[in-house]
Amino acid sequence: MMSLPSSLLHDSITLVHGIEVGHYSDPRRPTGCSVVIARDGAVGGVDVRGAAPGTRETDLLDPASLVNVVHAVLLSGGSAWGLDAACGVMRWLEECSIGLGVGNAPGQCVPIVPAAVLFDLHVGDARIRPDADAGYAACKAASAQTPMQGNVGAGAGAVVGKLFGMARAMKGGIGTAAVSVGGVTVGALIAVNALGDVVDPASGTPIAGALDGDRKMLCNTVSALLAGEAPLLGLSGTNTTIGVIATDAPLSKAQAKRLAGAGHDGLARAVRPVHTMSDGDTLFALATGKAHACDFNLLCTMAGEAVVRACVNAVRAARALAVGDLHLLCAADFGARL
Amino acid sequence: MMSLPSSLLHDSITLVHGIEVGHYSDPRRPTGCSVVIARDGAVGGVDVRGAAPGTRETDLLDPASLVNVVHAVLLSGGSAWGLDAACGVMRWLEECSIGLGVGNAPGQCVPIVPAAVLFDLHVGDARIRPDADAGYAACKAASAQTPMQGNVGAGAGAVVGKLFGMARAMKGGIGTAAVSVGGVTVGALIAVNALGDVVDPASGTPIAGALDGDRKMLCNTVSALLAGEAPLLGLSGTNTTIGVIATDAPLSKAQAKRLAGAGHDGLARAVRPVHTMSDGDTLFALATGKAHACDFNLLCTMAGEAVVRACVNAVRAARALAVGDLHLLCAADFGARL
Repeated sequence: MMSLPSSLLHDSITLVHGIEVGHYSDPRRPTGCSVVIARDGAVGGVDVRGAAPGTRETDLLDPASLVNVVHAVLLSGGSAWGLDAACGVMRWLEECSIGLGVGNAPGQCVPIVPAAVLFDLHVGDARIRPDADAGYAACKAASAQTPMQGNVGAGAGAVVGKLFGMARAMKGGIGTAAVSVGGVTVGALIAVNALGDVVDPASGTPIAGALDGDRKMLCNTVSALLAGEAPLLGLSGTNTTIGVIATDAPLSKAQAKRLAGAGHDGLARAVRPVHTMSDGDTLFALATGKAHACDFNLLCTMAGEAVVRACVNAVRAARALAVGDLHLLCAADFGARL
Repeated sequence: MMSLPSSLLHDSITLVHGIEVGHYSDPRRPTGCSVVIARDGAVGGVDVRGAAPGTRETDLLDPASLVNVVHAVLLSGGSAWGLDAACGVMRWLEECSIGLGVGNAPGQCVPIVPAAVLFDLHVGDARIRPDADAGYAACKAASAQTPMQGNVGAGAGAVVGKLFGMARAMKGGIGTAAVSVGGVTVGALIAVNALGDVVDPASGTPIAGALDGDRKMLCNTVSALLAGEAPLLGLSGTNTTIGVIATDAPLSKAQAKRLAGAGHDGLARAVRPVHTMSDGDTLFALATGKAHACDFNLLCTMAGEAVVRACVNAVRAARALAVGDLHLLCAADFGARL
């Protein structure tokens, strides 16, 4: 699928030095959250390209702003309710004495935790949403091991291919990938909950997305749209792909913002259509600085590759799901597996 | 003080049709939060001009983004910890069935609650911060009555004039004001916690701000800076003025963003220096549309006036405070009262 030699391709954002990942999946219904932790801090950036975002602490990531360190990024289901989980991440970080020191007295520690959420309130009981305890649990579960993919964490309730309604949609999920060149790694963790399809970027063929009316095969959302099939109204704002790109190269805040933008170019190759009025597509970038500096254009290229592969991995790892009246098929049902 | 006839000047943002305000002040230490509620929704905008902001749900306010309604804005102490209080505001709004409907099943309601926080962790025990219950309590206390001003809500722990250290700072607070012209009102609610001084905008004389070394009079931070007095280091990011400008005129999202910007011009007149690298100055604008349309340049002028007067009211209403080793004088100690 990729033009890069396979020896450069790896399977996890946690290969980036200084990065840990933890998931929390709610046992009550398919939703959850995922956290990317940089214990020693990372320079952060964000690029919000979807039109229906749900975010927290993104303004401080502006390159002209003061705070130069991020301690964790939260990705959560539950729509805006899921922002609550960031409070639990802050609590866990404070217990680990990780945060911005603003004095020497007890409590004068402010962990910096930007966050973005995706909409999964149509998958099971919408009254169940990730909360502060969910964020705390994701942190407790975090490690530098390769994280689980598919129906876990922020991907637990993720769905793709929703333009023609939930009955024809398929299961999305969360995925990760990394690319290493000359001792520097760029990794991505992406929760794919797109209005559009996830495609094989080499061929453009959908791997997971909207199905035909009889649910026997994928319809190809872009082709169907261009052929005049009418989108189902009433689902605006009920999608969103969110993720984190991390590198161990040192970056400025301005470069981190640009790296997040390069990640969106990866989304453009893997998700079609993407960045719609009904998606809140938001990518963060974290630079731990634990490896040596690297050509920035190369890093951006690596980010695009990592994001593409993470999206594909997300839907390949996803598994079919039945909850209430909703029966979601998955890419594996059509032969695409990790 | 103002060039506007006094008959046009009012005392509260709650004179804006469709706007309610509630405070919660923590009984344990001087901190708290304030909520501005638009039960029927309002078109929202935001302008972040300080360099150290702490915010939530600001990206969706971009005029190019989808969501066109805001149900409440939270202003909170507690630095980034205070963002937690927005969860309680969402909970209260949901119980009132106020939110964005995203389906007909239980729980498919998403209240839109942007938020900004200010830093007050140096005033008393920093382990005490506004949480979700604080946000909920502020909502329960909300009404269309003229709100309390001074040491309440998000202004409870607010301090101004910190450039030469907390020992020479004075008590800030929260204030409100409104201007009505031809049946349209613009109001402001501002929690003033600036690095700089609050000045009488007519004369430029500080009303509350940094004191001389013997705390007998205000030193005038700008004059002292320009005369070469060295700022005290180590307090970066520990300030921030936050607020809401509301009008009952109908506005587009783009106009709401611009109205918030006009409010910052009011801050520039009332707070000196303002928008520093150590302030996260953030203003929201809400347009309820319950009055008739009005010339937009007039509305922006009204917004500037309302913000200036709200800032002055904030420090005039503030009262002296002693907590631990910290003894903060107030404008009233120097003769400035509401």
